[in-house]
Amino acid sequence: MNTTVSTATILMHCRDQRGIVAKVTEFIQNNHGNILQLDQHVDHEDGQFFMRIQWDLSEFIIPKNKIQDYFQTLIASSYDMEFKIYLSEDKPRMALFVSKMDHCLFDILARYQSKEWEVEIPLVISNHEDMRKVVEQFGIPYYCFPITKENKAEQEAKELKLLEDNDISFVVLARYMQVVSEDFINHYPNKIINIHHSFLPAFTGAKPYHAAFKRGVKIIGATSHYVTTDLDEGPIIEQDVTRITHRDTIDSLVLKGRDLEKIVLSRAIRYHIQRRILVYNNKTIVFG
Amino acid sequence: MNTTVSTATILMHCRDQRGIVAKVTEFIQNNHGNILQLDQHVDHEDGQFFMRIQWDLSEFIIPKNKIQDYFQTLIASSYDMEFKIYLSEDKPRMALFVSKMDHCLFDILARYQSKEWEVEIPLVISNHEDMRKVVEQFGIPYYCFPITKENKAEQEAKELKLLEDNDISFVVLARYMQVVSEDFINHYPNKIINIHHSFLPAFTGAKPYHAAFKRGVKIIGATSHYVTTDLDEGPIIEQDVTRITHRDTIDSLVLKGRDLEKIVLSRAIRYHIQRRILVYNNKTIVFG
Amino acid sequence: MNTTVSTATILMHCRDQRGIVAKVTEFIQNNHGNILQLDQHVDHEDGQFFMRIQWDLSEFIIPKNKIQDYFQTLIASSYDMEFKIYLSEDKPRMALFVSKMDHCLFDILARYQSKEWEVEIPLVISNHEDMRKVVEQFGIPYYCFPITKENKAEQEAKELKLLEDNDISFVVLARYMQVVSEDFINHYPNKIINIHHSFLPAFTGAKPYHAAFKRGVKIIGATSHYVTTDLDEGPIIEQDVTRITHRDTIDSLVLKGRDLEKIVLSRAIRYHIQRRILVYNNKTIVFG
Amino acid sequence: MNTTVSTATILMHCRDQRGIVAKVTEFIQNNHGNILQLDQHVDHEDGQFFMRIQWDLSEFIIPKNKIQDYFQTLIASSYDMEFKIYLSEDKPRMALFVSKMDHCLFDILARYQSKEWEVEIPLVISNHEDMRKVVEQFGIPYYCFPITKENKAEQEAKELKLLEDNDISFVVLARYMQVVSEDFINHYPNKIINIHHSFLPAFTGAKPYHAAFKRGVKIIGATSHYVTTDLDEGPIIEQDVTRITHRDTIDSLVLKGRDLEKIVLSRAIRYHIQRRILVYNNKTIVFG
Repeated sequence: MNTTVSTATILMHCRDQRGIVAKVTEFIQNNHGNILQLDQHVDHEDGQFFMRIQWDLSEFIIPKNKIQDYFQTLIASSYDMEFKIYLSEDKPRMALFVSKMDHCLFDILARYQSKEWEVEIPLVISNHEDMRKVVEQFGIPYYCFPITKENKAEQEAKELKLLEDNDISFVVLARYMQVVSEDFINHYPNKIINIHHSFLPAFTGAKPYHAAFKRGVKIIGATSHYVTTDLDEGPIIEQDVTRITHRDTIDSLVLKGRDLEKIVLSRAIRYHIQRRILVYNNKTIVFG
Repeated sequence: MNTTVSTATILMHCRDQRGIVAKVTEFIQNNHGNILQLDQHVDHEDGQFFMRIQWDLSEFIIPKNKIQDYFQTLIASSYDMEFKIYLSEDKPRMALFVSKMDHCLFDILARYQSKEWEVEIPLVISNHEDMRKVVEQFGIPYYCFPITKENKAEQEAKELKLLEDNDISFVVLARYMQVVSEDFINHYPNKIINIHHSFLPAFTGAKPYHAAFKRGVKIIGATSHYVTTDLDEGPIIEQDVTRITHRDTIDSLVLKGRDLEKIVLSRAIRYHIQRRILVYNNKTIVFG
Repeated sequence: MNTTVSTATILMHCRDQRGIVAKVTEFIQNNHGNILQLDQHVDHEDGQFFMRIQWDLSEFIIPKNKIQDYFQTLIASSYDMEFKIYLSEDKPRMALFVSKMDHCLFDILARYQSKEWEVEIPLVISNHEDMRKVVEQFGIPYYCFPITKENKAEQEAKELKLLEDNDISFVVLARYMQVVSEDFINHYPNKIINIHHSFLPAFTGAKPYHAAFKRGVKIIGATSHYVTTDLDEGPIIEQDVTRITHRDTIDSLVLKGRDLEKIVLSRAIRYHIQRRILVYNNKTIVFG
Repeated sequence: MNTTVSTATILMHCRDQRGIVAKVTEFIQNNHGNILQLDQHVDHEDGQFFMRIQWDLSEFIIPKNKIQDYFQTLIASSYDMEFKIYLSEDKPRMALFVSKMDHCLFDILARYQSKEWEVEIPLVISNHEDMRKVVEQFGIPYYCFPITKENKAEQEAKELKLLEDNDISFVVLARYMQVVSEDFINHYPNKIINIHHSFLPAFTGAKPYHAAFKRGVKIIGATSHYVTTDLDEGPIIEQDVTRITHRDTIDSLVLKGRDLEKIVLSRAIRYHIQRRILVYNNKTIVFG
């Protein structure tokens, strides 16, 4: 939380073996790192080990730009470990995709303007002009790429170029009403966060509020997940629900759902920004 | 709530027309009934009117056994209304079906023993012997009808006979692990309450906790519904959910789910006993 | 919901007596009003009757400006009834009071800009300059009245003048960090909505998140209520909660609380705008 | 979860110092223990370190009865650490105190009979005869100690003797309607679990549902906590809530509350049985 201290965070994953925790914590502590948070998880069924560890760098004797190298050599290689190191000074850079709805957009921009998150938002991309005024009101550049069946590949190529030019580290689809292509998704694996307006896996696809109304459920939900090439099937990051009754109409479901969507999406973004999420087997581990 | 006062409750349903509420309330009030609760609902899309009205009978001038006749003649016929009248003195009689799991069973029997509900439970039916001791511990007769593919029709016929002999008004499947036949269901339309151990329509069918675990949802649920001939597709009465994390195993989902199942089933039973539920278009209206 | 139809809504309250519902619905239906929604509630302990009834005016034969008079003469007087009539065409006019925090403010302005509510916001008042830019960004006039012990009465008088000039029907304190005076409150009885950042009556007064942290609760909440002259003791309109753990710090409670506060306050505002709330005995009846 | 494997669990607490995690995990892993779960928490404000670690004993080279000694000598002493070691084969032994209400009692006995928990319940103690039949129905000895102002000390002494004779490790007050004395509490520090029928710290003391009704809250709760000599002020273990409306009466609050109470109490008991709880500064750390 204290952003004045410089920290490193490792997310790691390997086959479960005796001695990993001792080895990793020893590496940090012997080199004068002070552990701020440690969370581990063992999937006993699959025999997999997962850990997130964050430490204070102020007295750490390995230079920041060498941590990756040393950790790989001294620890990761002998455990056949996958890992990523994040420094607190490297703020993630987020691109926001929107269409015509503004509730998630406003929620994100308000948090951004009040500096709730350690993130940069260099640009907003849309397939419509509708949200330009809202976005520019917050001083963020707005790019519009209208999509048709014919120009989709071409427009996405321009979008990808723009993301690259802006050094974007992850993408948020804030009720972006376009299916992004397989190629686009492959450029950002487990780095595109979507919000689906139902309690997945119930009511996949279009018009989930209509489907929920028709089925007569007593609770509706929203689901944020990483986008994969299987529509609405990516790893779930966060879900929440709210109670409804027979008095609710489709219109009132949409309204209640908007409050859910924005909160659930913003929570997922926060977990991602704080590097709390590991993906394994199309599921997420969200460290607390 | 006050069980010492004699009351009547009407659940009614017809096409929405001007003047119904005035007409019905006038009928009750002119005949010296004191309205205790009135709930109405209009489905504006389908143009349907629904109402539940409960009144104190202590000074009502129409004799109890004539209310049905008078209401039909004076009100219902001119509005082409479907309705049911329930007297507080006629306690519903519930048959409980169980298999090998005891959590819903215990929850129901404990409420029954402490007289939480205005209901009679003349018998428990099972396809296994396992719960006999638990049930008889509460002084309720236990009947065991083991079911095989071959004897199913025959056994269900015996069960139906037993239900009829005991003047059963509704059936509760408290984790009864058998699909009941179409014929059986047709004997008790919207009078068989089931508990499904998922947030329907997610994870229909067998092993929903396994499916939820595999999909990596962050919330699990339970759903009570009336049984129709479409498996897991009947009108939903009540649902509730609980939060899970990546640490949960299938075993812990089952344990957390048990607490949900018993509470959700017991709420549905309560609504049914209190005659709060109207079914329309495969959905329920549960008056508050 | 359908805003193209002209409707009237009555909120009424009197001693419980036989025949009220019939009389009121008859009045509407005889005069060719089509009832859209009817909710009543009887407090059997206190013998009080409450009702909200909304009807379509398109064929109503009493002119809009005479409904008040006719209802008073024909119905209310004989039941000693208190009531208010609201026409759908008279949008409530809301004044927003803020200090330095922007989360509730943004949430309200975003809903306003996307026309989620049938309301006008002619102005925002603050005791600080901080939010001027945010508010003017949305094209709403911003008035700043810094408050000191010495100038409080004088500044509040100016605020009241401004509210009157703008024909304000209700006031929302969106984390306004000033206690408003008894005189101010008396100008808007049950018309000032506040958001308190705790689950009242737990943690009244200042710094509720600090108090919650210290007590070690496992759930935090937020409460919207009408302001009365007893601080934090006014009628509660809406509450909601979220789960916390031992890992939460005061900072993270504040962040989680912000999401609660804005949702809970916006729900209360919606109920007020839709004229769903009756106040009795320092409690609210919020019709569904 | 797998109860066939023999495990050890340590709950430990000391001042935060560099190197603790490495030291402790090394101790386990060097001695051929396989870590099954590790959870740590650092209170950065107070500079306190907390950890729960559970490991598989099947290949552990230190004999079970020596672990305490070795851990004290090799680890705990140099960190000035408080700790407790629990072996999976030592089932906690729980004494249940009840009065006249049966909902928590039934819930606990049902879980006990279906072996949901790794616990022994050698006896139930009450100040009334009412629940004797229920308890004996489950084959558990029932002891009745009626309490008056005069005999309280004497009766509690008998109870304590009985607890000691039965080697009781913790006590559960399942809606036991008697304040236990300071002396009694001091025999079981942080080992007496109570359920209070409100969302503490709101509505302490007697009749919380009456108080909640009077205040007009929109949500009610239940709180399980360790009993300390300050009434209703002990460390909170678990809380949960449920939504209510203006339609609820005190009777219906009591009914809804019963479902909350039993679930919240049973969760707290489970955390205690699984040795997940550390108490510090009158607050609990409940490891996940």
